[in-house]
Amino acid sequence: MKARAQIEHSPPPLSKKRLRLWLRLLKATRYVEDELRRRLRNDVSSTLPRFDVMSALSRSPQGLRMNEISKMLRVSNGNVTGIVDKLAQEGLVLRITPPADRRALLVRLTTKGHEEFVRNAAAHEAWIDEIFARLNEDDVDGMILRLDHLTDKLEEREDVQASSAD
Amino acid sequence: MKARAQIEHSPPPLSKKRLRLWLRLLKATRYVEDELRRRLRNDVSSTLPRFDVMSALSRSPQGLRMNEISKMLRVSNGNVTGIVDKLAQEGLVLRITPPADRRALLVRLTTKGHEEFVRNAAAHEAWIDEIFARLNEDDVDGMILRLDHLTDKLEEREDVQASSAD
Repeated sequence: MKARAQIEHSPPPLSKKRLRLWLRLLKATRYVEDELRRRLRNDVSSTLPRFDVMSALSRSPQGLRMNEISKMLRVSNGNVTGIVDKLAQEGLVLRITPPADRRALLVRLTTKGHEEFVRNAAAHEAWIDEIFARLNEDDVDGMILRLDHLTDKLEEREDVQASSAD
Repeated sequence: MKARAQIEHSPPPLSKKRLRLWLRLLKATRYVEDELRRRLRNDVSSTLPRFDVMSALSRSPQGLRMNEISKMLRVSNGNVTGIVDKLAQEGLVLRITPPADRRALLVRLTTKGHEEFVRNAAAHEAWIDEIFARLNEDDVDGMILRLDHLTDKLEEREDVQASSAD
């Protein structure tokens, strides 16, 4: 998705620049995801969805239901099932039934799974540090601030929609 | 994916800030994509993959092969086939066999398809303008510059890999 050539002597209107920014955001996100996918595969024999599932589980030591994982990661239940099956075979997660609710099935990292996630998360942080090496502290702070402006606006909108749906 | 709480009196190292920036980039991209998906569905009864296919075709008036479309959009051939079938039923694209290469099958927008895309692209630009309304011209220029730094680095890497694979 290349930005169309602009006529040099008339600067593009702000709406065109915002569109160009959106295409750049999309491109950058995809490039970084591709690079992470490549490094996960080559360096630690993992995948992005597997890393994301373990990351979600590491933030919920009490365990998560399958549909909670799939909602957090925005992927289908079917995909999460395949990943969790594989992790269980490798002894990295356990499926448990909490005594308080016998119908609930929770997935939880084992100690081995937690250790693997900690190692992979450290590698992931180092890769991101390298990928973003051209952005200094001011660049990073400035971009976080502007991305927050953008998402705050979209979150407000979601809040309005949620409350008007009541 | 919320950033973990930082200890107030020791500022986070740059690697943690870069990780936070990456999570914010991912979040912003997903939010904007969700919003576009919602508006395409509600306002013009379309979808993001359909819009992307028409957008790719609008930039190639001579037509595109199916595998070119799927490569440009990074989706599977199967998905592109379903979208193109639907567009053909609605008279928005044509499948043509160029006389110079009888084995090639090209997909091209019809005049009706081109007109629909032009209308939808104008709506899309207006939505982006509204979604990014909190970012002024300086914000937008600054972010484009920094995102280009980021992707230039990743593109250089791909060039190195491609040339070392020769």
